Amino acid sequence: MHNQQIILASRPEGWVTPENFKLIEAEIPTPGPGQVLIKNHWLSLDPYMRGRISEAKSYARGVNIGELMVGNTVGEVIASHSPEFAVGDAVLAACGWQLFAAMDARAVTKINTHQVSPTAYLSVIGMPGITAWTGLIDICQPKEGETVVVDAASGAVGSVVGQLAKLRGCRVVGIAGGQKKCAYVLNELGFDACLDHRSPDFAAELALALPNGIDCLFENVGGAIFEQLLTHMNVFSRIALCGMVSEFNREPHAYRTLRSILINRIRVQGFIVSDHLETWPAIRESLYALVVDGRLKYRESVVEGLVRAPEAFVGLLKGENFGKQLIKLT
Amino acid sequence: MHNQQIILASRPEGWVTPENFKLIEAEIPTPGPGQVLIKNHWLSLDPYMRGRISEAKSYARGVNIGELMVGNTVGEVIASHSPEFAVGDAVLAACGWQLFAAMDARAVTKINTHQVSPTAYLSVIGMPGITAWTGLIDICQPKEGETVVVDAASGAVGSVVGQLAKLRGCRVVGIAGGQKKCAYVLNELGFDACLDHRSPDFAAELALALPNGIDCLFENVGGAIFEQLLTHMNVFSRIALCGMVSEFNREPHAYRTLRSILINRIRVQGFIVSDHLETWPAIRESLYALVVDGRLKYRESVVEGLVRAPEAFVGLLKGENFGKQLIKLT
Repeated sequence: MHNQQIILASRPEGWVTPENFKLIEAEIPTPGPGQVLIKNHWLSLDPYMRGRISEAKSYARGVNIGELMVGNTVGEVIASHSPEFAVGDAVLAACGWQLFAAMDARAVTKINTHQVSPTAYLSVIGMPGITAWTGLIDICQPKEGETVVVDAASGAVGSVVGQLAKLRGCRVVGIAGGQKKCAYVLNELGFDACLDHRSPDFAAELALALPNGIDCLFENVGGAIFEQLLTHMNVFSRIALCGMVSEFNREPHAYRTLRSILINRIRVQGFIVSDHLETWPAIRESLYALVVDGRLKYRESVVEGLVRAPEAFVGLLKGENFGKQLIKLT
Repeated sequence: MHNQQIILASRPEGWVTPENFKLIEAEIPTPGPGQVLIKNHWLSLDPYMRGRISEAKSYARGVNIGELMVGNTVGEVIASHSPEFAVGDAVLAACGWQLFAAMDARAVTKINTHQVSPTAYLSVIGMPGITAWTGLIDICQPKEGETVVVDAASGAVGSVVGQLAKLRGCRVVGIAGGQKKCAYVLNELGFDACLDHRSPDFAAELALALPNGIDCLFENVGGAIFEQLLTHMNVFSRIALCGMVSEFNREPHAYRTLRSILINRIRVQGFIVSDHLETWPAIRESLYALVVDGRLKYRESVVEGLVRAPEAFVGLLKGENFGKQLIKLT
């Protein structure tokens, strides 16, 4: 039995390609004192990883060439040198893109999989769900009857943003790429409207869908969509700036609508969810209860095999996934 | 004795010109019940007025063609139908660009001119000073040792921002147009550095002046300067977006550096000071005390005669004034 790892082979220039990564064979590590050995079953792929493999300054230390790719994983303990973990425990950890990892016990979270699927800890009650809660509830603070807009609406973060906003009594407008995603957002997730940003009439459709403007914007995409959304913001509106994935592979977008921030006295807050670790347990508990109650739906896009993680990651950055992108490792 | 008024004659296309205004003769109004008749001595010219004469949406109702120009004034009561005012009282009101006005008593503020000049109520302890306090103290919340940057640093707002930041123990870097203004900001106002944005080496000088980046940015100007300042912002920094005067007379600037808001988790708050009228009395009291103590300096740029208000206003928008722009009416 061997370990397999995916390392960064080269930095992308523009679009990421599978050739930027390399699968290598490695020894299964031996856990040291206080450590557990984890066999990973699921790897989460997330847009933030694009920032980590870039030369440009991002919000976290980057992955160097030759280093293991970072990522959150769900797996089981197969050997434990910690009194807090037993063999067989289901756990969440940031093991990276590999099959086995020895981790300090304090960096590992035991998960309860009796009522929710283990993969939910990588999506709706994991980092993406907590991101959605932080940006919408803590930063945007939507009030009943307000209009909330979220782009990448069918994704792991956007889908939770919109459902939470509906639960708060807001009118929710999603933006997604393609009719299939829009139909899901509208019919399955229960948004009030969802617009396909690829539509040639997107600008007109957006104006029609926003008769009362935007009070809260949860921004994942950036670029031309964000530039346009800025012109629909209401007085005293709020923007949680969570991502600008459209800029990852291109020259920075040139935004011509910043005056709206002044005119409408908008509050814009850039954030990343790991700045607020102290809030995670309470938020996870709230999300967990909503999932168990069936009030928070989620969708997964599963690719089998670590070897296919690079191509799945490229697809994620191009918006080809549909729901939370996961790699099934075993 | 007649009244004189300046009305909006036409909307500017691009730069404002004196021809956009017209001086007319008018009757001196008769104050009604509960009103006072004011003879204005001083008219304040402020950048926000540019927004009021524009077709584009701004934050307040615009001035229509043929209507009196809006503006704050300091004068004296010459007839009173209100028990709260006596003839001879020095008062602050928004009488607009005219010599005489009948105003409801509740829209008039009696001012104390024993220890400060009446014109201070139009600058350092008036709307500009309160704007500075609101943006710096309430929105940016600077901490001792942090770096604060303000552009239009020699102006009525910027000069107060920088001095308040110095009083809070911050390192303060100003940006102004021309060596003369920079020398004033540095030597008279006591900023730690002041950069001339017209310098051909502005970008390099800015980087040198900001070895520890920017924690608080008080933004008055917008455009290329703001775009560049965004690249120097620190993690968890704050921006009070108070004005974008550089955009008034041009096509909107295209900002290519918005990603900094995300990467550095910046909070940006657009604001106008009249949204926070409930905070004005306490702020004015604090500013008044600082002026009386000699801890807050200010400078005025006085033009004599209502007839010259249009050209002075054009100069203000071009940055030709040096300190608070006032019109001496009598």
